[in-house]
Amino acid sequence: MDTLTYLIPGAGLAALAYAFWKSSWVSKQDAGSAEMQEIAGRIQEGAMAFLAREYKVLAGFVVVVAVLLGIANLSGDSQSPLIAVSFVVGAIASGLAGYAGMRVATLANVRTTAAARIGLPAALDVAFSGGAVMGMSVVGLALTGLAGLFLIYTGVVFKDNLSLALNVVTGFSMGASSIALFARVGGGIYTKAADVGADLVGKVEAGLPEDDPRNPAVIADNVGDNVGDVAGMGADLFESYVGAIVGAMVLGMGYPAVANEATGMGPIILPLIIAGVGIVASIIGTFFVKTKEGGNPQVALDIGAFGAAFVMAAATFGLAKYFWPASGAITTIGGREVAVMWTHVGIATVVGLITGVFVGMITSYYCSMGKGPVNGIAEQSKTGYATNIIAGLGLGMQSTAVPIILIAVGVMGAAHFAGLYGVAIAALGMLSTTGIQLAVDAYGPIADNAGGIAEMSHQKAEVRERTDMLDAVGNTTAAIGKGFAIGSAAMTALALFAAFTQQAHIDGINISKPEVMAGIFLGGMLPYLFSSLAMNAVGEAAMDMIEEVRRQFREIPGLLEGTAAPDTARCVDISTKAALRRMILPGALGVLSPVIIGFTMGPEALGGLLAGVTVSGVLLALFMSNAGGAWDNAKKSFEGGGYKMKNGDVHPKGSEAHKAAVVGDTVGDPFKDTAGPSLNILVKLMSVVALVIAPLLAHYGALISF
Amino acid sequence: MDTLTYLIPGAGLAALAYAFWKSSWVSKQDAGSAEMQEIAGRIQEGAMAFLAREYKVLAGFVVVVAVLLGIANLSGDSQSPLIAVSFVVGAIASGLAGYAGMRVATLANVRTTAAARIGLPAALDVAFSGGAVMGMSVVGLALTGLAGLFLIYTGVVFKDNLSLALNVVTGFSMGASSIALFARVGGGIYTKAADVGADLVGKVEAGLPEDDPRNPAVIADNVGDNVGDVAGMGADLFESYVGAIVGAMVLGMGYPAVANEATGMGPIILPLIIAGVGIVASIIGTFFVKTKEGGNPQVALDIGAFGAAFVMAAATFGLAKYFWPASGAITTIGGREVAVMWTHVGIATVVGLITGVFVGMITSYYCSMGKGPVNGIAEQSKTGYATNIIAGLGLGMQSTAVPIILIAVGVMGAAHFAGLYGVAIAALGMLSTTGIQLAVDAYGPIADNAGGIAEMSHQKAEVRERTDMLDAVGNTTAAIGKGFAIGSAAMTALALFAAFTQQAHIDGINISKPEVMAGIFLGGMLPYLFSSLAMNAVGEAAMDMIEEVRRQFREIPGLLEGTAAPDTARCVDISTKAALRRMILPGALGVLSPVIIGFTMGPEALGGLLAGVTVSGVLLALFMSNAGGAWDNAKKSFEGGGYKMKNGDVHPKGSEAHKAAVVGDTVGDPFKDTAGPSLNILVKLMSVVALVIAPLLAHYGALISF
Repeated sequence: MDTLTYLIPGAGLAALAYAFWKSSWVSKQDAGSAEMQEIAGRIQEGAMAFLAREYKVLAGFVVVVAVLLGIANLSGDSQSPLIAVSFVVGAIASGLAGYAGMRVATLANVRTTAAARIGLPAALDVAFSGGAVMGMSVVGLALTGLAGLFLIYTGVVFKDNLSLALNVVTGFSMGASSIALFARVGGGIYTKAADVGADLVGKVEAGLPEDDPRNPAVIADNVGDNVGDVAGMGADLFESYVGAIVGAMVLGMGYPAVANEATGMGPIILPLIIAGVGIVASIIGTFFVKTKEGGNPQVALDIGAFGAAFVMAAATFGLAKYFWPASGAITTIGGREVAVMWTHVGIATVVGLITGVFVGMITSYYCSMGKGPVNGIAEQSKTGYATNIIAGLGLGMQSTAVPIILIAVGVMGAAHFAGLYGVAIAALGMLSTTGIQLAVDAYGPIADNAGGIAEMSHQKAEVRERTDMLDAVGNTTAAIGKGFAIGSAAMTALALFAAFTQQAHIDGINISKPEVMAGIFLGGMLPYLFSSLAMNAVGEAAMDMIEEVRRQFREIPGLLEGTAAPDTARCVDISTKAALRRMILPGALGVLSPVIIGFTMGPEALGGLLAGVTVSGVLLALFMSNAGGAWDNAKKSFEGGGYKMKNGDVHPKGSEAHKAAVVGDTVGDPFKDTAGPSLNILVKLMSVVALVIAPLLAHYGALISF
Repeated sequence: MDTLTYLIPGAGLAALAYAFWKSSWVSKQDAGSAEMQEIAGRIQEGAMAFLAREYKVLAGFVVVVAVLLGIANLSGDSQSPLIAVSFVVGAIASGLAGYAGMRVATLANVRTTAAARIGLPAALDVAFSGGAVMGMSVVGLALTGLAGLFLIYTGVVFKDNLSLALNVVTGFSMGASSIALFARVGGGIYTKAADVGADLVGKVEAGLPEDDPRNPAVIADNVGDNVGDVAGMGADLFESYVGAIVGAMVLGMGYPAVANEATGMGPIILPLIIAGVGIVASIIGTFFVKTKEGGNPQVALDIGAFGAAFVMAAATFGLAKYFWPASGAITTIGGREVAVMWTHVGIATVVGLITGVFVGMITSYYCSMGKGPVNGIAEQSKTGYATNIIAGLGLGMQSTAVPIILIAVGVMGAAHFAGLYGVAIAALGMLSTTGIQLAVDAYGPIADNAGGIAEMSHQKAEVRERTDMLDAVGNTTAAIGKGFAIGSAAMTALALFAAFTQQAHIDGINISKPEVMAGIFLGGMLPYLFSSLAMNAVGEAAMDMIEEVRRQFREIPGLLEGTAAPDTARCVDISTKAALRRMILPGALGVLSPVIIGFTMGPEALGGLLAGVTVSGVLLALFMSNAGGAWDNAKKSFEGGGYKMKNGDVHPKGSEAHKAAVVGDTVGDPFKDTAGPSLNILVKLMSVVALVIAPLLAHYGALISF
């Protein structure tokens, strides 16, 4: 093996060093007045308390699954109980990434407020540094863990058995995905229960402004931003990133005998190398995110994020040339034997990137203020609540069309050049610069929190204005990042699915078989069931929150007048309890259903299940995310100077049309922040679980035969 | 060929004779006062005018497609241009069934009102007879046309080529399905645009009661009931029925060499025979639908409908014993060669019936007043519009779980006993008594219309009470029938899909191939795009209707005082135009997409498309239909004495909670009456189109190769 490969964990460690350095820098910044620090302290306390309780619950889950994985693998000859170790390491790494990100986010928020008292560039610097710590922690822990395990397994434990080493390393991906699903669902329930409670009672009923300190749910709401948007998103991208790498590595086994003569390595190691170089590109990219007073921070963010992505696309050609066998690798594409050359691998990356950018642009179009779709919803708000809801639902459904066509074309394009391995590489192409993309994403909630702290600590208006500006900037980059996330999730799921087919030793998954048909139906249903559990959890937790906030306004004398403090801890507790209790069932659904179907109905039916859940999950995720995003901005269209209808009438904030738009936004909240993003994880988690149990399935077989 | 088979069109003709006899009987009944006749005349005029205009549009479509089918088939040696003839005959038969049903429905409505002046039994008799004409016209035209063509093709045209005869006869199914899709979508847009307009302005804004003659949209609303619920539903069941028969016949070719020694016929002819005997059972069943004054008409309907179904289940065993080869038919199930015996075929029917009844019961549970799910929505209406909508959406998603599990188990069960042929026979088992089931379904809108006429013609309260009672009765039977429709649609689609695989001469459809993955994604997206087109059409047509009704109240002096008549024709015109213009695109989507994907991406990708559209379509249909039904009844829970919440508070009609429930119902209207039911047709139409073009695909091949 090329000694170069030992540099891969090195790239991971570099990311961690960068994260540590930035984190220390952030914590040394001015944390503002005592009042600001007190508020920030309560947010940090609530967020950390939630994380501690969540991890306690998840620790039990991890131990049980690890024991089961260990026992199940004892008897086989093509498996190893070490898979349990990989699983635990993956779970811990994911947890650590969430912890690190959340810790720095809750330090950075108040320091961003403090910096905003000086100026926009300083505030951007603090907020983006916080996001960068998150981004680099995620990719650093992911790559160090994954590459470290892989090098130990191939170099020490299973020297003669690459296939076994790869199988065992998939456990890392399963650990990461499991934690991600629970974190996303739990965080999503937490944040939306708090948000709905704070909005419907505090803002609508009591007439308080956003983030008013008299609102009992306002701390829970700010905690929710960290718990849902920072920790949840971090775990989400951690698992996407790992899944894309692992899927590509396993598919690389389709070329077991080939390697570049010069390096001795080839298709299997290439994904790790791409990831490593992606980290370097991301780190470099962060240094370009600087702005001057009066400059446009959006340009800085775009240069950082897109620059890194396009550098990576070019770099992939170079990496492929160096690591790919010079005479190409033979594979079967469309029934013909084809030699895949290094150029084809590079083209597959570009196909992935183009697909991601286009999907992102479409997503952004459907959800942007001032564009046709969002204006259509605003227009339909004129005739009331029902027409606003119908318009949003119709729009969400319509918005699935172009992205799905793009994904279908992307899959076929990538596969045309480099087979199923090409699909995996395309997904990895989108995700290789996760480090900087996540930095851009995570800085949003930090800026949002900074605004909340400015409001609660009664800062001057210009401070809030600056944090609002920070929040608005980067939305385009983030919207395109969302498209990347959905596009890459679909492609990663397909890659993992293909990897499963390979590892389960089945020739193909034939839809004309009744058990596969049944599997597809069951798989297609799971995202619906999963979403309904998430939506109901938000609905019921929100009702509890609404009643608690109403109770406090009624029973605490002087609260509305500002002479008494609200019992914010109680609201934090309601969200925490609801999230922890209600994340179990949907999470378990994702982990258990592939196991149950696989062992009762067999590997082909399980393949059907995966196909069903992937298609149905990606569609529902697009539908829910885009409808939610569009409703949100349709509501925002009425704020400021009001919304001007086609016939020229202006409907201001507070008008009937605006009220209808607020209802649409509330419906959209659990769509876009709880159920929608969790579905991306669900589809990949189920594929990873299938991949992990594939050798066991081949060994034990199915209970029922047809 | 057994001479018995010539009796099959005989059964169809018997159904037509029955329909003719009942139709004459209905038209001879008392049509009531001049005022009643005038109102009924306007409804009939509007409905017939719509049908005439719709058929004119569709005639153009039929001619174009027929010419294309004829030309495309000229060059092949395994096809025949006669497929165009089958297509035209299928389209005409479907159109005639819709015409006959609508004609008698618009005669029966006013005669039901007139009979309700005498008593309940007389009114039930007229209304049910009207429904029975619809039911028998549908099955009579379907079986006469299909069996007639098949006997001509096998007996005269293609004596030596059963495969070709079957291929050509699939054109009949395609004709029926195309018309059905346009009729369902067009009717659905018509009825909901009128309904929303009549309700939101007439009832909510102007405070008029239901069916008040001063409401300008009220005639359009009543026309809509006929256009959407009678003609649309008739075309829908016509295509389901034909699809199930054709799917089973084509799969019967899987046993080309076998036949019962005594009769010379076997698996291919059996579906036609089951359908023929099902007609006889349905006709007999109608004679049991009688009630005495004070008796419970529900019992009568149940005995008629379920009695016929269970008689058919038993009869299928006898038919299978007679027509199935005595020593069984060899097929491959789960990789093993198995001899399918006549008992297995009988069991598959029973599996289908049980699946249908259970799916129906679950559907009914989720949508029934007083049951947990509907109460949950009513409860969540307390905290406002948003929570009502979230609850309904969550519930609709949740309601997909058990039906999908049942369908998956049903598919595997039927296939376990009799292979894919068993799945087709199971679907046919559910649909063989369509004659009487449709009679029960179609009598609902007749009773509904009768109530409207009673209101508009100022009848005594007891007349309206009796028509309301008629309307309420049969809801359970109809709800279970709805479950039958969805369950049978899923199974029929799978059967047609399997038939396509067989006819396209492909070994299987392997999901691990990139083009199949792409096909599944594209197929899964189509129901979303289709639904968004339907929902947007309703939304925009409803806005036009709302503005027209508002205009009339504003500009016609004396309208609200009852001294001036509204311009009802204008409202009828708005609905008609919107329906005709907006049905084209979704309809074309269904017909064209399999052709485009098949000829560009090849038959396996087309198989993926069908799998995707089936799973996604069935799920979305369940979600939308059940959410819509539950919202409807949650709203109704507030009517009468108001709804009693868990905490004991009673929220009456007109309360804030009731208003929230009204919004939910309005959102649910296009879900359950426009998009939802159309999806059932879409999935089957696409499979039928694929089946029709399968030999052409085998001949011409795909444009792009991978």
